Amino acid sequence: MKTKILRMLRETKQFVSGQDLCERLGVSRTAVWKVIKQLREEGYQIEAIQNKGYYIASYPENFSESEIGSSLSENTFIQSIYEYLEIDSTNRQAKKLAEEGATNGTLIIANKQNQGKGRRGRHWEMEGGTAIAMSLILKPDIMPNIASMLTLVMGMSILEACQKTLAVEAQIKWPNDVLVNGKKVCGILTEMSAEIDYVNYIIIGVGINVNGTSFSSELENKAISLKMATGKQVNRSELTVSILEKFQKNYQVFLEAGNVQFLMKQYNANLAGINNKVRVLNLGTEYIGTSLGINERGELLVEGSDGVRHTIYSGEVSVRGMDGYI
Amino acid sequence: MKTKILRMLRETKQFVSGQDLCERLGVSRTAVWKVIKQLREEGYQIEAIQNKGYYIASYPENFSESEIGSSLSENTFIQSIYEYLEIDSTNRQAKKLAEEGATNGTLIIANKQNQGKGRRGRHWEMEGGTAIAMSLILKPDIMPNIASMLTLVMGMSILEACQKTLAVEAQIKWPNDVLVNGKKVCGILTEMSAEIDYVNYIIIGVGINVNGTSFSSELENKAISLKMATGKQVNRSELTVSILEKFQKNYQVFLEAGNVQFLMKQYNANLAGINNKVRVLNLGTEYIGTSLGINERGELLVEGSDGVRHTIYSGEVSVRGMDGYI
Repeated sequence: MKTKILRMLRETKQFVSGQDLCERLGVSRTAVWKVIKQLREEGYQIEAIQNKGYYIASYPENFSESEIGSSLSENTFIQSIYEYLEIDSTNRQAKKLAEEGATNGTLIIANKQNQGKGRRGRHWEMEGGTAIAMSLILKPDIMPNIASMLTLVMGMSILEACQKTLAVEAQIKWPNDVLVNGKKVCGILTEMSAEIDYVNYIIIGVGINVNGTSFSSELENKAISLKMATGKQVNRSELTVSILEKFQKNYQVFLEAGNVQFLMKQYNANLAGINNKVRVLNLGTEYIGTSLGINERGELLVEGSDGVRHTIYSGEVSVRGMDGYI
Repeated sequence: MKTKILRMLRETKQFVSGQDLCERLGVSRTAVWKVIKQLREEGYQIEAIQNKGYYIASYPENFSESEIGSSLSENTFIQSIYEYLEIDSTNRQAKKLAEEGATNGTLIIANKQNQGKGRRGRHWEMEGGTAIAMSLILKPDIMPNIASMLTLVMGMSILEACQKTLAVEAQIKWPNDVLVNGKKVCGILTEMSAEIDYVNYIIIGVGINVNGTSFSSELENKAISLKMATGKQVNRSELTVSILEKFQKNYQVFLEAGNVQFLMKQYNANLAGINNKVRVLNLGTEYIGTSLGINERGELLVEGSDGVRHTIYSGEVSVRGMDGYI
């Protein structure tokens, strides 16, 4: 009910009478009053004027179920949101919930991750309380061998959200990072539980450095936060909602098409290192080639110095730019 | 220690003195005596003669950790065995153990499954106490997109074990069943947890109808047990050991090659429906073609009546023979 009341107040953008809230939600005055009290404790400044009703004068910078849930459009694909103050890893928790039967469209968010996961079981460091750590459970009716494309769909959605919400110039580092000023601002970790020809569930984990102001000496040359890049505090819930809405649209197109042709042009236009020399590391061997961008299956095309065109399957290789980006 | 003592008695095939057992295991007489007592309670007939020692006169038909563990060769890849009297599903339990950190080479066996899993979440029915229900946890350094071939590697190993141990004429129904007399005797369910380019773990589940004597009316035309086919009681632990030893060999070759070319010839020689008409169901459409057998990637080649050759990726389709097999 908290999310519903918050949504009504948020959408109206003016005073809503207590009577109105009671009638539309079918609850008592006391119940409404309890929620208002709770919201105030969470940092919402809510004005209450006799004969006019309630009005939200200002919103807290909360990364929370209520903020995200009440801001998502009503026809969202997000079915439920699990919020954690601190957790080991949202991907790990998402897997646990999925094994226990969590449905398609379950979102897991955490204010702090203490054992964030990077690719191949690596550690992923993020400052608590300033970052977006979230994981999305999806159960699409697709073949496991195209699931890898979802990393690109999410990357594109994050890029669009950053451009729209923050007017920040971001780039994608294929396949799973988003860069600002050539430094990493976001990583995506897609995991899957599958039979040979059947997806049990997919987890898309997203970590974004949002309002951090510094990094460890090991990371400071490689990582950046949105605040460091823009000079402005960024509302994490707003950005999350924007990402989820972009993702919903792109995901729908992807499911219908079964490939990522629809985003190829835009992806390549924002691809770090495109038409430039990149270093390709593939199972111990290394070569330098020219990045030609992705194809409709989301694979990266790289032309070697011998003119041979290589099609790189997601992550068989790591690609590093030679023009400064990490 | 139970498994070690059992292995020593089993391998020697004659009397082993208590002193000898104590020295080789570095334990007390009392400890050895306790294990002997325990083994007797489990159904082992152990003779004990003064000045000669212990000797196993007969083995129980136990599907157990000690029977399997003590029969596997010393250089087995099986690192540990979890034994359950009754469990929901060995694949489900294997996933749980893998998420909790179980290592490569963990085997889960159950005397009875009450919620056996078939493909795509379907139910898989097996009589308790007479079947083999087991799941193997593997963590190979392979790309997720070749993991599907492991179903074929296991299928081949089961076929070899049946031929060797039981001298029974089995066939493979691509991709994941083993047939005897055209009826299903075994199903394989391979599941995987993976990142795009990294396998977290693979579970290969195997269900074999071993000593059952009847099936529900729904299944009796489609299913058969090894006992029904051979007229003989089959020792489940022995068969399991034989399968695991065949698998270990085939798995090693597969890991080195990255494909199933090494077993293609033998697989196709035992493939149900090869060079015969099969019905291919693919995403709602259906056609009849001639099965030409698998290729080195484990895909099934089917030639349509129009002469067009189709390469069928594991399970995008279901293939049914028109010559009687299920």
